[in-house]
Amino acid sequence: MDFDLIIKGGTVLPMTPGRAAIRDGAVAVRGGAIVAVGPAAEILAQAPAAEVLDAGGGLIMPGFVNTHTHLAMTLLRGVAEDLPLKEWLEAHIWPAERALMNADTVELGTRLAAAESLQAGVTCVCDMYFHAARVAETVAAAGLRAVVPESLIDFATPSCPTPEIALERQRALLERYRGHALVVPAVASHSPYSVSAANLVKEAELAEEFGAPLVIHLAETRWEVEKITAEKGVTPVAYLADLGILSDRTVAAHCVHVSDDDLGLLAEFEVGVASNPVSNLKLGSGVAPVPQMLARGIKVAFGTDGAASNNTLDLLRDAQLAGLLYKGLSGDPTCMPAHSLLEMLTIGGARVLGLADRIGTLEAGKRADLICVALDRPRAVPLFDPFAHLAYAARSADVRHVVVDGRVVVRDRELLTIDAPALLADVRAVTETVRAGVSG
Amino acid sequence: MDFDLIIKGGTVLPMTPGRAAIRDGAVAVRGGAIVAVGPAAEILAQAPAAEVLDAGGGLIMPGFVNTHTHLAMTLLRGVAEDLPLKEWLEAHIWPAERALMNADTVELGTRLAAAESLQAGVTCVCDMYFHAARVAETVAAAGLRAVVPESLIDFATPSCPTPEIALERQRALLERYRGHALVVPAVASHSPYSVSAANLVKEAELAEEFGAPLVIHLAETRWEVEKITAEKGVTPVAYLADLGILSDRTVAAHCVHVSDDDLGLLAEFEVGVASNPVSNLKLGSGVAPVPQMLARGIKVAFGTDGAASNNTLDLLRDAQLAGLLYKGLSGDPTCMPAHSLLEMLTIGGARVLGLADRIGTLEAGKRADLICVALDRPRAVPLFDPFAHLAYAARSADVRHVVVDGRVVVRDRELLTIDAPALLADVRAVTETVRAGVSG
Repeated sequence: MDFDLIIKGGTVLPMTPGRAAIRDGAVAVRGGAIVAVGPAAEILAQAPAAEVLDAGGGLIMPGFVNTHTHLAMTLLRGVAEDLPLKEWLEAHIWPAERALMNADTVELGTRLAAAESLQAGVTCVCDMYFHAARVAETVAAAGLRAVVPESLIDFATPSCPTPEIALERQRALLERYRGHALVVPAVASHSPYSVSAANLVKEAELAEEFGAPLVIHLAETRWEVEKITAEKGVTPVAYLADLGILSDRTVAAHCVHVSDDDLGLLAEFEVGVASNPVSNLKLGSGVAPVPQMLARGIKVAFGTDGAASNNTLDLLRDAQLAGLLYKGLSGDPTCMPAHSLLEMLTIGGARVLGLADRIGTLEAGKRADLICVALDRPRAVPLFDPFAHLAYAARSADVRHVVVDGRVVVRDRELLTIDAPALLADVRAVTETVRAGVSG
Repeated sequence: MDFDLIIKGGTVLPMTPGRAAIRDGAVAVRGGAIVAVGPAAEILAQAPAAEVLDAGGGLIMPGFVNTHTHLAMTLLRGVAEDLPLKEWLEAHIWPAERALMNADTVELGTRLAAAESLQAGVTCVCDMYFHAARVAETVAAAGLRAVVPESLIDFATPSCPTPEIALERQRALLERYRGHALVVPAVASHSPYSVSAANLVKEAELAEEFGAPLVIHLAETRWEVEKITAEKGVTPVAYLADLGILSDRTVAAHCVHVSDDDLGLLAEFEVGVASNPVSNLKLGSGVAPVPQMLARGIKVAFGTDGAASNNTLDLLRDAQLAGLLYKGLSGDPTCMPAHSLLEMLTIGGARVLGLADRIGTLEAGKRADLICVALDRPRAVPLFDPFAHLAYAARSADVRHVVVDGRVVVRDRELLTIDAPALLADVRAVTETVRAGVSG
């Protein structure tokens, strides 16, 4: 039987345990799944392919997994900068969000985020926003794999006037997207300080009923820890553990201010931690103890957070920055070695999202989510070790081809699923109203 | 009289004090110098131009100034990674350097660095390496502005068997390149711990005789501070001050471990500080107190350091990282605001190198060193403020055109002065010997 697609002409980095790089390797795809990984000569001899993608002497590897973002917030990129956190959030981001965000603009911002993500080599994201049905449609059309939750807060959101309506929307989403090829429907509760204990428990029950991820912000700022500790007598992590809602399906974003006991709970309940190094630095929130999490076997990987606090969705840049940050702060250049960073960008991210059986490595049986990284710029020579190159020298601009679920979505750095010039024009037109407010 | 070159079709950011962005602006160049900056309609009405460069709706701004690097060490990019500092340096970098570096390979590595720098929007660098005569020829041919010193250490270097010969070579370089359009000849002393007091004084006298920059590594590691303090009874900064060799022509790289008194000396003697955030983090050296330096009025800007410890010459990335780092470590999101970062990348870097009368801003009378930054990718929309865009969202891959001293050296992201494919092939061939050593 013929292959649908063969990716060849480069060095394959399968990211499977113990499997070395395959020089002049190839990956064969059928029905959206990887069916063979090996030397190109062997793969090409097995069967012809309907489509061939040439890596042009670059690297062929799993796509990057962005474990935490707010896709549609690309529309608020750069709307306010260099301000104290409270002023930034309350005087700028929230008003802009209220003024701008409806189902149509969420769709537009999500499409912009999908375009940016795919071109940066990100093949899977975990979103956390509103109007989730529109988000799901949009990422599916763009060909981006995504965990898509509708978010619940104890007050009105852009899509749900009440938490009760949010719960209904969440259930509808979980039913509609069950078993979807690209969209993993999920539940999101904003945070321990903005959702009541009763609603948090309802959320966890809903997620459990559907075996769905439960996404939540957790221990992001010192303020949050002080508030919860004052009100509940325990840390935010312990509070969620006491409520019985932590599980191996929990995706906890941030976990910056966590105690040693908190780390023990995250490990015990097999919580997935989405660390957002750039956003945490930019907002002055702090630095999460990621090396300590890794040492304790906690599932931890990186997220960009939303573009309002990053300002990009360039996960490779953020992971590289994290690697440097932890070496510098620990004073230990052996901390966070290159291969470990690359694992976090791929299979580590898949584990955090509960998708390690489907994506994160290149091996037969997994879905075909992969990227080709070009080695055609001066920064790519000399190249002694591909992992070191990716961890310290490569840039997202080097991502040349992107395949998600077996579909070529970026070829020669250009999007095949989105009309980029039209998209950029649409965003400029819609955000002109926000700009007028900013300038005025 | 006609213009040689007009750059138009974008928003001009002159980076001059108080001068706002010029929408639909233009820059006119004659004889390598800027002769007019203003609205495009006005400039175009003044005279025709032999050559027109279109920014395609992007930003037109001064090129970036890399205040500290070791150009030829691009050949050692990634040769050893994730190792303790002493092992990395003594068991890998030094042996590879001894095996690989001669006049021809220094030329090759310098050409590679020039290619990478120009494509990343860097129009001026401060080098610190050996075989300076070859470095000077190479950067001049590439069209890159550079401060080029021959380096002195108290033992044999790849180019000079003794310090006495290094002093002779330094004098010859200073004489030969006096008044050169692109090359600023300079003196480099490796560090307070590797050059004797007598030689440091001779170096400073030579630099003073020619009015040349004196480049030196200073207070990079805790080890250095402890060693100098034990031997001299004062900190490395105070030791150089006591020797009488600090001046407004000193370019001091690193200054990570500096006391409050050291900061006072750096301010008093108007020393230029080249901070290398990525290298300092990657080697576990620490974090320089850059915000404190800025607060005290010390001239401070960014450098990449050599590619062996970075691993790129992507100064924009490094400055962005520094901005995030200082916000995060201080817990204050107002620290290192966008405009301040952009000043450090341009006019601030020029000040550190003593070149602020020649480069760093776009204004009549300065040399024409400028870049056009494209706004054609998803990360460029929406765009509320160009400085915030450059500080948080732009990538060096967005650098589309580069002009140095009035010469177009990069057009549509391609080098005009260097045959990039041939260069990459040459580097791969030469470093194959190093790779064999690494693998073996």
